[in-house]
Amino acid sequence: MRIAIDAMGGDHAPASTVEGALAAANQWKDVEIILVGDQAVLEPLLKERPANLLIHHAGEVIESEDEPVKAVRRKKDASMVVAGRMVREGAAEAMISAGNTGALMTTGLLVVGRMEGIERPGLAPMLPTMDDKGVLALDLGANMDAKPEHLVQYALMGSIYRQKVHGMPSPRVGLLNVGTEEMKGNELTKAAYPLLKELPIHFVGNVESRDVLSGACDVLVCDGFAGNILLKALEGTAGALFSVLKQEFSKNLKTKLAAAVMMPSLRNLKDKMDYKEHGGAPLLGLSGLVIKGHGSSDAGAIKNAVRQARAALQSKLTESITKEITGRVIQG
Amino acid sequence: MRIAIDAMGGDHAPASTVEGALAAANQWKDVEIILVGDQAVLEPLLKERPANLLIHHAGEVIESEDEPVKAVRRKKDASMVVAGRMVREGAAEAMISAGNTGALMTTGLLVVGRMEGIERPGLAPMLPTMDDKGVLALDLGANMDAKPEHLVQYALMGSIYRQKVHGMPSPRVGLLNVGTEEMKGNELTKAAYPLLKELPIHFVGNVESRDVLSGACDVLVCDGFAGNILLKALEGTAGALFSVLKQEFSKNLKTKLAAAVMMPSLRNLKDKMDYKEHGGAPLLGLSGLVIKGHGSSDAGAIKNAVRQARAALQSKLTESITKEITGRVIQG
Repeated sequence: MRIAIDAMGGDHAPASTVEGALAAANQWKDVEIILVGDQAVLEPLLKERPANLLIHHAGEVIESEDEPVKAVRRKKDASMVVAGRMVREGAAEAMISAGNTGALMTTGLLVVGRMEGIERPGLAPMLPTMDDKGVLALDLGANMDAKPEHLVQYALMGSIYRQKVHGMPSPRVGLLNVGTEEMKGNELTKAAYPLLKELPIHFVGNVESRDVLSGACDVLVCDGFAGNILLKALEGTAGALFSVLKQEFSKNLKTKLAAAVMMPSLRNLKDKMDYKEHGGAPLLGLSGLVIKGHGSSDAGAIKNAVRQARAALQSKLTESITKEITGRVIQG
Repeated sequence: MRIAIDAMGGDHAPASTVEGALAAANQWKDVEIILVGDQAVLEPLLKERPANLLIHHAGEVIESEDEPVKAVRRKKDASMVVAGRMVREGAAEAMISAGNTGALMTTGLLVVGRMEGIERPGLAPMLPTMDDKGVLALDLGANMDAKPEHLVQYALMGSIYRQKVHGMPSPRVGLLNVGTEEMKGNELTKAAYPLLKELPIHFVGNVESRDVLSGACDVLVCDGFAGNILLKALEGTAGALFSVLKQEFSKNLKTKLAAAVMMPSLRNLKDKMDYKEHGGAPLLGLSGLVIKGHGSSDAGAIKNAVRQARAALQSKLTESITKEITGRVIQG
């Protein structure tokens, strides 16, 4: 299997992407890794050249401040766009990028292309849960004004992802909502609920945002707006609490001693709450596999994204989703 | 000024409402407090009878599990409904209830009545911020599918509330959104943004959910769905973190000692994060003042709600909002 990496995307690229690609190529000999980017920049960074690590030259770069749609349309030789074209044309089965999120979603839509029957692909990161199992939440930002049928597709795709990639036999799928009762919600969730009940998934009903962290479901279905509010609220609350704790701990000698005792478990807790630590986010509903790494991805995060892409390819994720969606389209 | 209290509403009613009403009547002699509820139950609980504390009999009670609209329509003699009727008919200028939230919103709409020009009243609790100033967020649950004009009215009403009741000369009003740039958001927020910019308020633009806790604005405008997701995410994250901290602190003797040192500031932080501690939530956009106390309100919370109602009445809150809204309606 061939995995293209946008070597120029991300805050720490290309050092992080090259190092991560090298580690992955050395660990998984069944994977061919293609670093897409400026050859003159990448060559000197490669300390070794395993046989399963290639460079594919691309002369342009999409910057984090570029306007996504314009950048993808104009920079036809950008590393991200070239990697997307390789997936579309079958030169790679998957691509990974830690670059501009909006541009990657645009590359997914315009370059890789949507899966037949899918109107709106969804971005599906793992959010942390206190039981460490995590929850796959989608959509988290690709689609701001979802329709009920979009939520239905997110539920199907998310459930298949957790089955195939995480080996969960029957993932619990929940609908992000303002109350647990069936009749609660806004027009969108009230229309989606009865549709979700009819799907061949383990639908556990509505889930309130306060119960997401405690692991109320394995797949959380939401529109991109509500999902973003949830994600950034988790992040903001955890950040604010840790910064206050830090202040309190540094108050005097006694609290500093207490801090020394508690630091390892606090650091542990902080890592747990950091959704950036929980791997790359697949962009589900495309005709090929696209994985979004966090902008601040280091070499370890890039290697993890390769692990994730490999697991998805081995489990025939895209084919399974296509089968399910096409089946529904033919039925409907 | 006369303030009616739904004496039967809330988890700890009527003991909490009677005790809170007594404390308030003793503290503020310029307020006449009317306890609305079953006279036979209330009389024996009243240890004293200050001249400014009255009982108004109401034979029925709306329970927390009652279906809101049905209950308000059928239980015409319920303490909550009778208190609402007193406000409508001018027998009281304000009412306070810690009872069934849905029923109170229905009482506001159907019994007290909307202010002229307001389509959807908004529930406006204070959310905690790390700088202790708090943020008035509306709507938090009265209106699930808001239109841009509803958000405009929330912005105006929230800004006036903080000016009048909290004495802020120029409250910063933010729009809850997925990014800070003007063009970000869903259809609702993108349509609301240019309208908010034109208002006679201090509009500070979009605010992301991660920045709410750090005090990015004094009034946060949102639809009821997004607001609920935000509120419960703050609550859930804080709860989850505190429960993990508790576990970590009780691991062994060293961590228990550390816990003993840190406990006062942790408890402080926990209280800070508890939005239930931040007073009652006004239901803005009604023809009279309605304040929702949290279901778990104790006597202190009831007394605080009286303090809040008194400040709002003294500052002519409802009249100020009416003037602003009517002005806009006539202009428009």
